[in-house]
Amino acid sequence: MTTADHVKTTIYGRPVSVDGVPNLYEGTPVVKWTPPEPGIDNLGLHSWDTFNIPGVGEFNVEFDGYVRVVRSEATDCEWAGAEVYTNLIEMKMVAESEELGRITTTLNPDCLSAGQIRTPFDPYAGEGPAAKACRMAVGCLFDMPKLGKTLFNREPVILTIDDVRSIPPAGAPGKGQIYRMLPLYDVQDPDGEPVGYLTSLRFNMGGYLAEEQVR
Amino acid sequence: MTTADHVKTTIYGRPVSVDGVPNLYEGTPVVKWTPPEPGIDNLGLHSWDTFNIPGVGEFNVEFDGYVRVVRSEATDCEWAGAEVYTNLIEMKMVAESEELGRITTTLNPDCLSAGQIRTPFDPYAGEGPAAKACRMAVGCLFDMPKLGKTLFNREPVILTIDDVRSIPPAGAPGKGQIYRMLPLYDVQDPDGEPVGYLTSLRFNMGGYLAEEQVR
Repeated sequence: MTTADHVKTTIYGRPVSVDGVPNLYEGTPVVKWTPPEPGIDNLGLHSWDTFNIPGVGEFNVEFDGYVRVVRSEATDCEWAGAEVYTNLIEMKMVAESEELGRITTTLNPDCLSAGQIRTPFDPYAGEGPAAKACRMAVGCLFDMPKLGKTLFNREPVILTIDDVRSIPPAGAPGKGQIYRMLPLYDVQDPDGEPVGYLTSLRFNMGGYLAEEQVR
Repeated sequence: MTTADHVKTTIYGRPVSVDGVPNLYEGTPVVKWTPPEPGIDNLGLHSWDTFNIPGVGEFNVEFDGYVRVVRSEATDCEWAGAEVYTNLIEMKMVAESEELGRITTTLNPDCLSAGQIRTPFDPYAGEGPAAKACRMAVGCLFDMPKLGKTLFNREPVILTIDDVRSIPPAGAPGKGQIYRMLPLYDVQDPDGEPVGYLTSLRFNMGGYLAEEQVR
């Protein structure tokens, strides 16, 4: 199930159409310094998140799962000038926490989670082609059964990958750009006080998955 | 004019009502380590922004203007446990740029720009009461007449002030938490490529203004 058919009120970046775009699975080559054809990347993802739940505690949890990302056509066939736009169309990440239970993170269907890959204005010095910067602004649902709540963010989680040498940046480490604490709200009381905070997030992008791994 | 009467599709934080909340102007005392009564703070603001407009150039511009911020009742009458929620209900910042003309930044009326002040989970060590952290997620319109465009952001600009010892944190320096580049879109082509990027922002909160200064 994707969130594609749900009306999105919050748009975090440029929309990318999925119409006619092929799904890409295990075995798809990832070529360095080369803008690829449009595709839906089915990729593994692993992350280490820290939640702070006031009155309950701080919890370091490790998630594993997958994402499905639709990529636009590159704006240029040469690497140097190419920009690529992305939408996160599906995400499922699961963590086991003794205190919080089995946490499942999915996309908030009210949000278009979106990003882009382009050459930064402050590139790292180095030989060869300039590496790109990847960013994605994400609206999540964090289902925490032992807490009896599903939490969501209103500031997007900004996931970034630097030193991008291929698209997708399979295998690359990344970071959630969280300044001190990102407020999380209860879907049952969306205008109430935040019930938790995401205070840290780092991740590793995995490689292409087999089709049965994202079903 | 405020954006209060416009339907907001993008909600960046907790809504705070303006009903019955008094406007506060020049002469209002700011008391350290003390949660204040609810109010609408009419404050000066000064900022230094860097824009990168692909194909045009990089521009460092200095803005001056004001904000109007409605503050909720504090969740506790003691400083240590008090949390305060804020909505930015009006902003007008003006900069003169030789290349970009007279830039005017206002609130995007589609967005509820919102924030909070609370004790961080990673407080600075020190004597006396713990200083708080202030954050505000903001949706802006950047009118750039010489470019012939009005730009807007889809990832909120996260404005933060650390070491907050009074509410409002009048006179305090702050920072926009921008990782490398925050994409800006053209209001006339909202689903098109970003036409510019905000790459840096720092600011100083001013003090209370006289009523005629925010008219």
